[in-house]
Amino acid sequence: MMKTASSDPALHEFAPIWLRDSCGCPECRDVGSGQRLVSITDLPADVWLTTTRAVGDSIEVVFGPDGHRGVFSRDWLAEQHSPPEDDRAEDAKRLWAAGDFAVALPERSWPRYLASEADRAECLSALLRDGFFLLRDVPCQPGTVLSVAASMGFVRETNYGRLFDVRVEATPANLAFTGLPIAPHTDNPYRDPVPTVQLLHCLATAAEGGDSGLVDGFLAAARLRAADPLAFEILARTPVTFAYSDATAELRATRPMIGVDPRGRIREVRFNGRSMQPPRPGREGRAGMLAFYAAYRAFTEMIMRPELMLTFRLGPGDCVVLDNTRVLHARTGFDAAGERHLQGCYADLDGVASTLALLRRSRKSSR
Amino acid sequence: MMKTASSDPALHEFAPIWLRDSCGCPECRDVGSGQRLVSITDLPADVWLTTTRAVGDSIEVVFGPDGHRGVFSRDWLAEQHSPPEDDRAEDAKRLWAAGDFAVALPERSWPRYLASEADRAECLSALLRDGFFLLRDVPCQPGTVLSVAASMGFVRETNYGRLFDVRVEATPANLAFTGLPIAPHTDNPYRDPVPTVQLLHCLATAAEGGDSGLVDGFLAAARLRAADPLAFEILARTPVTFAYSDATAELRATRPMIGVDPRGRIREVRFNGRSMQPPRPGREGRAGMLAFYAAYRAFTEMIMRPELMLTFRLGPGDCVVLDNTRVLHARTGFDAAGERHLQGCYADLDGVASTLALLRRSRKSSR
Repeated sequence: MMKTASSDPALHEFAPIWLRDSCGCPECRDVGSGQRLVSITDLPADVWLTTTRAVGDSIEVVFGPDGHRGVFSRDWLAEQHSPPEDDRAEDAKRLWAAGDFAVALPERSWPRYLASEADRAECLSALLRDGFFLLRDVPCQPGTVLSVAASMGFVRETNYGRLFDVRVEATPANLAFTGLPIAPHTDNPYRDPVPTVQLLHCLATAAEGGDSGLVDGFLAAARLRAADPLAFEILARTPVTFAYSDATAELRATRPMIGVDPRGRIREVRFNGRSMQPPRPGREGRAGMLAFYAAYRAFTEMIMRPELMLTFRLGPGDCVVLDNTRVLHARTGFDAAGERHLQGCYADLDGVASTLALLRRSRKSSR
Repeated sequence: MMKTASSDPALHEFAPIWLRDSCGCPECRDVGSGQRLVSITDLPADVWLTTTRAVGDSIEVVFGPDGHRGVFSRDWLAEQHSPPEDDRAEDAKRLWAAGDFAVALPERSWPRYLASEADRAECLSALLRDGFFLLRDVPCQPGTVLSVAASMGFVRETNYGRLFDVRVEATPANLAFTGLPIAPHTDNPYRDPVPTVQLLHCLATAAEGGDSGLVDGFLAAARLRAADPLAFEILARTPVTFAYSDATAELRATRPMIGVDPRGRIREVRFNGRSMQPPRPGREGRAGMLAFYAAYRAFTEMIMRPELMLTFRLGPGDCVVLDNTRVLHARTGFDAAGERHLQGCYADLDGVASTLALLRRSRKSSR
């Protein structure tokens, strides 16, 4: 049965060059790797559909001018109508306030996480969807946080080492290494690329204080956008420099506090009062500064709202894993003479998403 | 000598809240770490300058309403007038075409690089400014590329390992592991964060072919913007999914091919025909697809222009280090039966910039 191109509604919305670029035949794609073998400049600039023909659940297309032949399944074509899937932007997330976890936190025991692919998949899903999860009963052996990171991705080494200790130091280069309270922040905003996953494993607690707090930075940004669109827009378009310096590192990165994708969707939050540098005046001078500071204050106030901050206390053996491009973390102050000791490391979300995809692949194939 | 705030021209362009946020006194900044101790919400919403007074080369300011006192050096204030320094955007780079390196490549011998801080600093400057440099006489011992990476930053481990071999494989998961020619591309665009530095160390060459090519992606993008502003704008605002899948990884990232900062300056290029997925139709449907493909073709043609591609041949002991957010690399085909063998690894630009800053600090203090 022959059809003209325009008569098959399944092809209607696709430009011929798009179909040609999507061709999965062995001339166009490597059979082993699935990688594309032809450059766009190898294809004719003017491409058209000479004939289309239904073949089972697929459509066979012959392209002009060169007579190239491609086959497209109707299922695959139907999928292409959905918007691009950026799993890092707000649309792919479940935004939350503290009350959304009133019943239970996303958590698992470490032995169960290790034993069950389904439990591992749920934890990694929570990290990608909610921005965090907790592991309990992680052995209080120094260095175990690296095993936790390795279970889901790859450790990102930094000037703090593959692993770092968070405890009171005599001459702290970072306020994290004191007993001071730390306001909600994302880690290492002075780094580009920023580490996208942070892990903190509790080995010992303070007698009192040192409680943890988490804030969904995407929710705070979304609420700011609803309440004060101008403030949101200022923070999304103003590059801010974050800086850190000690004896062994001198880091700076310049990015907006609210990173958006080209469609304006929230994709990344950088927020850290300790390392943020006052933004340069820019073209708008004094008035621009005033507008920036009003926006920054409004965002900070949103982040500090009590209903946004999920609070809990890490006990020995607890490990929190969080999306450092989204979830801000905080702690209350504690007695510097105490024993509080966390170990932390960084990793990246792309590795986590890959591990989750492999877990799903394995569960699918074992059904 | 008392002055009103507005009468000191050095303060004229700065909003009072900006000055207050910039205060470096021990109440506002930790003396040891230099980190800010106060949140923006700890400061009054309405701040003004009550008095200002010249003190040596500085200005002492008393703020209202709380009488807080801060001192700002005139030199520091003068520096704040320059635009924000984002060392990753095009303004901070020296864009190049092949002819700019007709006389010499930015290169050093490995022994000299190791022995001299000044030589190391020049190489790292070249990486940040030009997007690449070459090392010669790097010992052909497997694994040495990791030492090269460690000399300038931190290795970024990925599913390919801390270290990967680029040579012909029997069942390649990636076309890199064949003898096929590879068109100019950036590595791992399906990763987010993308590795920002790539190192390739040559251990053995092919009898013939396997020559290297580098293209300055920022120059190609800047020329596209000059020649065809609409094409540039389409590529800067269209999210494209890049994907990679093998037995141990399933990665996807969705970003525009030309990443720009909020001011529209080029900041990142992702370009890889092998792993790019045809973009979803989106709101603009068929017409949008046609416009995207015209823009993509125009950018590809710009990248492929012979005058843009710097070509050279890596010999045993050569190691190329490149900015993978900017410089595209390519290779010609070679006989798959031959011995060509490279080892590669990834690292990140933030670590490189930190190492360079420390080298400059050390050279300054030793003067």
